[in-house]
Amino acid sequence: MAGRRNLLLTGLAAGTLAGGAAPAATAELRGTGDLGLVVERASGSVLIVETTGRTALGRVTGLGDLSHASAVFSRDGRYGFVFGRDGGLTKIDLLRGEVARRIVQAGNSIGGAISDDGRLVAVGNYEPGGIRVFGSATLDPVADIPTGSKVVGLSDIPGRGFIFSLFEAGEVWTATIPEGGPPEIRRFRDVGRQPYDGFVTPDGRHYIAGLFGEDGLARIDLWHPERGVQRVLPGYGRGEEPLPVFKMPHLRGWAVAGEQVFLPAIGRHELLVVDRRDWTERGRVAVHGQPVFAVARPDGRQVWVNFAHPRNDVVQVVDAESLAVVRAFTLGRGVMHLEFTPRGEQVWISVRDANRVEVFDTRSFARLASLPAEAPSGILLAARAQRVGF
Amino acid sequence: MAGRRNLLLTGLAAGTLAGGAAPAATAELRGTGDLGLVVERASGSVLIVETTGRTALGRVTGLGDLSHASAVFSRDGRYGFVFGRDGGLTKIDLLRGEVARRIVQAGNSIGGAISDDGRLVAVGNYEPGGIRVFGSATLDPVADIPTGSKVVGLSDIPGRGFIFSLFEAGEVWTATIPEGGPPEIRRFRDVGRQPYDGFVTPDGRHYIAGLFGEDGLARIDLWHPERGVQRVLPGYGRGEEPLPVFKMPHLRGWAVAGEQVFLPAIGRHELLVVDRRDWTERGRVAVHGQPVFAVARPDGRQVWVNFAHPRNDVVQVVDAESLAVVRAFTLGRGVMHLEFTPRGEQVWISVRDANRVEVFDTRSFARLASLPAEAPSGILLAARAQRVGF
Repeated sequence: MAGRRNLLLTGLAAGTLAGGAAPAATAELRGTGDLGLVVERASGSVLIVETTGRTALGRVTGLGDLSHASAVFSRDGRYGFVFGRDGGLTKIDLLRGEVARRIVQAGNSIGGAISDDGRLVAVGNYEPGGIRVFGSATLDPVADIPTGSKVVGLSDIPGRGFIFSLFEAGEVWTATIPEGGPPEIRRFRDVGRQPYDGFVTPDGRHYIAGLFGEDGLARIDLWHPERGVQRVLPGYGRGEEPLPVFKMPHLRGWAVAGEQVFLPAIGRHELLVVDRRDWTERGRVAVHGQPVFAVARPDGRQVWVNFAHPRNDVVQVVDAESLAVVRAFTLGRGVMHLEFTPRGEQVWISVRDANRVEVFDTRSFARLASLPAEAPSGILLAARAQRVGF
Repeated sequence: MAGRRNLLLTGLAAGTLAGGAAPAATAELRGTGDLGLVVERASGSVLIVETTGRTALGRVTGLGDLSHASAVFSRDGRYGFVFGRDGGLTKIDLLRGEVARRIVQAGNSIGGAISDDGRLVAVGNYEPGGIRVFGSATLDPVADIPTGSKVVGLSDIPGRGFIFSLFEAGEVWTATIPEGGPPEIRRFRDVGRQPYDGFVTPDGRHYIAGLFGEDGLARIDLWHPERGVQRVLPGYGRGEEPLPVFKMPHLRGWAVAGEQVFLPAIGRHELLVVDRRDWTERGRVAVHGQPVFAVARPDGRQVWVNFAHPRNDVVQVVDAESLAVVRAFTLGRGVMHLEFTPRGEQVWISVRDANRVEVFDTRSFARLASLPAEAPSGILLAARAQRVGF
């Protein structure tokens, strides 16, 4: 099996890595609630990290093309499922620090999701377009759902279900997969032109798809699928004197903070502030560049934002109540992602060109740790397993 | 050390228990995200359970008086901290299935909380009245905050803080404990007569205290402590032709579901439905008895309710949108508590006099498992570690 590395009992010394396979019995008995993965895009590897002592525990290599990679976690927090751009799906044992299983399931994939019962892992594919579903224990195939379109914005929904958008077809589909039965598919047509990403609200009730081909968003109420698609935020600025778009914002990073949603405005140096109930615009926040991720601290008091090239060396912190930028950090080129610990006391930020992951206290803004990593991009904590839509 | 029992590698056979201490190396390497504790009140013991295979993994005994016991969990999910009525604070190693440490810290305690950084465990005491704070690693004392009143409604708040109510004094205090520094106390006076319990909203922003001595509730906005206490739901029925109160409802079980809060009406066979934004009453739901716990499924679509003696053999399911009772289960006398898995696909229900814990699928309402337990009361899953106010 490719990519085995042993899990170290203590943190890695900066820049050094132990290789070779460790006997199983040496893996440390420990909880998994504070573990996570840092994607090292250029080297096709991931770091296993822990957020209590704030150290790296080990590295797993051989994961293929990890550009745009993401991961989900088993419901017990022991395993991470890493989705590579090359269609690779790798199940990583976070406790043993090794690859538990790896398949290449398609030619070109763009992320995945895990069902609410933890038994199914779904991957969204560009080539061939569709989703494929695997058993989380073995990665054996369970369902293959071709769409004839690139699949984007794949998310889990309650009830052993998944939801996703079809880029060329302008549709959103849900697929629920009963135990032992065939998938049940529901199609929402004419959702708008070129949905390019989507996400589920934290309660699992609404799916929001961003539209590349027009100025607005599509919203579906999963409690009332019979009501179809609602268009929201029409004319919010996507088509109005657009700036060149250097990088598409990630919808999954949209921030729901109290009664407001903070949304990166495509191509503009702004966050949109949207009413959570009716999705009308409440205001805008001028920020440093084109926002990529706008993520709410779990208590909803702050929104942390990173930016597209060439202004991608800065992170700004927006106060969700006053809408003021209360802090900015200059961290080096290529701030790629940020992730809060589940109770929000820490934020982990990847800085690609500095080859570091920086950890900050979200109240004092003090730097708590700085970990070496090889061109880090996504940071994904195992506590995501406990939430819908991650 | 009292109360060691080994952690079994497989589920317990019904009614049988293996005794004796197991060597450490035999504890199973496994994730902790799906673990939990079931309090066995009469026998001073807890069962360690897992929600993937839905089995009991072992039992830990010798925990003292567990009437009204509760528990919180370490941020890595490995340890549970059980608060006994007799002032006992027991740290349980969920992986080894044994007591890691135990102290008796006061004469009469009523629950506790763990700080957002996971380093501090606080216990609320009746006798002597106050809170005591301990380091989560060692249970060594960190702070002692006497109040001269019984402490109720203790919860964590963001920023290494705790909030709690003083029953006789009619006050609410917050205590934040900087690393290495003395506690910083803030007092809210005249919150109302006899606060008897309290809870923090899921975002950690608001604290709500129930009042036994008058007809209404107290609400504090922790983003704006300078605004003091707001009285909400005055005259909601606490004092209006009251029925005899057989059991005080637990506020910690109040259900925040979408835009609504579902609140057990004290002494009445009703749930109050309250607007989440302004805490005005929106309606009432007639239910089977005096509600004790009203808990929202994590997606907010359903609220599951249990009831006080003598109608404590039933659980009802309320649809949060239509406000209709959509299902009822008769499970046996003494339905004490219910807990959802974090993504809401399962609910675990303790039935004291049946000596069983029942597990249901929350969509199909099928029974998934029935586990033997000795007079079970509280069910507490380790995923609580990832949330504010649990």
